Amino acid sequence: MSCSSASADCLGWAARDESGVLSPYNFSRRTPGVDDVSIRITHCGVCYADVIWTRNGHGDSKYPLVPGHEIAGIVKEVGSNVHRFKVGDHIGVGTYVNSCRDCEYCNDNEEVYCAKGMTFTFNGVDADGTITKGGYSSYIVVHERYCFSIPDDYPLASAAPLLCAGITVYAPMVRHKMNQHGKSLGVIGLGGLGHMAVKFGKAFGLNVTVFSTSLSKKEEALSILGADRFVISSDQEQMKALTKSLDFIVDTASGDHPFDPYMSLLKIGGVLTLVGFPSEVKFSPASLNTGMRIVSGSITAGTKVTQEMIDFCAARKIYPMIEVIPIEYANEAIERLLKRDVKYRFVIDIEKSLK
Amino acid sequence: MSCSSASADCLGWAARDESGVLSPYNFSRRTPGVDDVSIRITHCGVCYADVIWTRNGHGDSKYPLVPGHEIAGIVKEVGSNVHRFKVGDHIGVGTYVNSCRDCEYCNDNEEVYCAKGMTFTFNGVDADGTITKGGYSSYIVVHERYCFSIPDDYPLASAAPLLCAGITVYAPMVRHKMNQHGKSLGVIGLGGLGHMAVKFGKAFGLNVTVFSTSLSKKEEALSILGADRFVISSDQEQMKALTKSLDFIVDTASGDHPFDPYMSLLKIGGVLTLVGFPSEVKFSPASLNTGMRIVSGSITAGTKVTQEMIDFCAARKIYPMIEVIPIEYANEAIERLLKRDVKYRFVIDIEKSLK
Repeated sequence: MSCSSASADCLGWAARDESGVLSPYNFSRRTPGVDDVSIRITHCGVCYADVIWTRNGHGDSKYPLVPGHEIAGIVKEVGSNVHRFKVGDHIGVGTYVNSCRDCEYCNDNEEVYCAKGMTFTFNGVDADGTITKGGYSSYIVVHERYCFSIPDDYPLASAAPLLCAGITVYAPMVRHKMNQHGKSLGVIGLGGLGHMAVKFGKAFGLNVTVFSTSLSKKEEALSILGADRFVISSDQEQMKALTKSLDFIVDTASGDHPFDPYMSLLKIGGVLTLVGFPSEVKFSPASLNTGMRIVSGSITAGTKVTQEMIDFCAARKIYPMIEVIPIEYANEAIERLLKRDVKYRFVIDIEKSLK
Repeated sequence: MSCSSASADCLGWAARDESGVLSPYNFSRRTPGVDDVSIRITHCGVCYADVIWTRNGHGDSKYPLVPGHEIAGIVKEVGSNVHRFKVGDHIGVGTYVNSCRDCEYCNDNEEVYCAKGMTFTFNGVDADGTITKGGYSSYIVVHERYCFSIPDDYPLASAAPLLCAGITVYAPMVRHKMNQHGKSLGVIGLGGLGHMAVKFGKAFGLNVTVFSTSLSKKEEALSILGADRFVISSDQEQMKALTKSLDFIVDTASGDHPFDPYMSLLKIGGVLTLVGFPSEVKFSPASLNTGMRIVSGSITAGTKVTQEMIDFCAARKIYPMIEVIPIEYANEAIERLLKRDVKYRFVIDIEKSLK
């Protein structure tokens, strides 16, 4: 699909090999079909997935690879069958851009779990055999089903991280009924996902404890994010004091970490939801069984709950904390992301910097 | 509590040391209080817990140790406040005989998860400081709250294994809504717990697949227990054919085993309930997250659901498959249990053999 012909009117930044180094790359997008929306991208969040695939972390990267699956922008063209969007609308695209639209999961609006496999927004193989290219680019063409309406008064830069970081924590929180006022939530890890879990937790009326390995995030966690308690997870005394005190835990840590110490903090019947990807999950059966506990996992979500989350954020004025960067800063941003040196999500200002 | 005085009128078999060898042992029980029921024990199931504690497997065994927590018998005396039982009633006692009766869990009839800790039926420290002694004995005195009514037409020998093996699988199956006609269930391990999971699964109208390491159990699993399918878990072809096919799995295996191969058999959102105690639980986060799956754990259950299970078994004529043995055979039974050489639960005929 890469080409340098006259139709290569989409400007992007791509990794060319496993170094993951991003550089300008022009390519073509398909002509919008009757069900498609063509979107002028204004912003794209920088997700850890971008790091993984630009560097061939899973061995399946197809270069040139244009990353980015937290996409916000403005509708520039719609197909004749498109009813939900019109030119000028604010719009978002998340981690997938296609699915079979015919299986039990698609029919249940859980497209991300499509029986035939959903198509990732980048590095995915689309129905027509082309390799998808993501949001580090000037525009994108997507079937309207996989597009989300962003209210006009919600900043597009803030909307971008909702499409992966936000929905990844929101969906399991709602699924496991964590939106019960007065219950208690622990959040492990305070990065792009973790800080959204804190924000959702507070919006749901929960008492929120943040677990982090870094004291540097304490002040912000408490004063800006509004967490009720901040615990350094290596502090065994603080950890012990919280034994059987939490109804829920959202575990956003992708670094390897022990599970037993956290599971012991859950009440009887408590739920830990894992949204990170450490190399393994390992715990004692006693941590699970003797507390009638639940360990669950999740990846983003279907289109219905994603739209609900965006609307919830708009209604409750919940905004990710972001550091807006120009596209030229993308390589440095990825290096800083690897060092967890971001509060809490980089968002590329595509509109102003990709020219 | 052990003594050889005239009051040592309770005949039992006890382990005296870590060898775990059981031999006759006379001891005393407390005089029944106003809320107590004194029970003439007729039958006691042989549970793997008996092996663990007679041999000091957890390092906390208090000798002489009288095991047994699958107790069935007949009421021989009741305290003045006892309303649910009268002399001559058929009655059962399970894995615990006391709890605080004042915490949120006790108030919610989840006494097994009592905030102050429930008292195990044997080797437990009771409220008065005495060490509890189990059902390998002629009688037991228990607060009525921790006793269960056994319908007259339900054989006492069959009732015994319900009190641990039965309830351990029944409770999480009901909690996780596995009682939905037409859904599919996998059962890992076909021992005391596993064979009951198959029976409950069929009673709930599920399509049941048994996973076992031993082909020797195939015929019985299909023809007698009524399972729909029998899979040798090392057969990768059979396993692969079942990918994403199961709604639920009840994992009763206490031997170490991999979890990823089984989790891959669960549908999106599927639930694996662990009731065994392998040395650890270990799996890839992808097995959990990409399938929105749930791993849950459980130990027996509170008094309310235990009574419900007994009533369900009586109404539906569900009986454990048992091998009835005399108390003199207890040591050999434990050796055979260690070799998994039992179909599927030993039950000691206390009434006829302990004299």
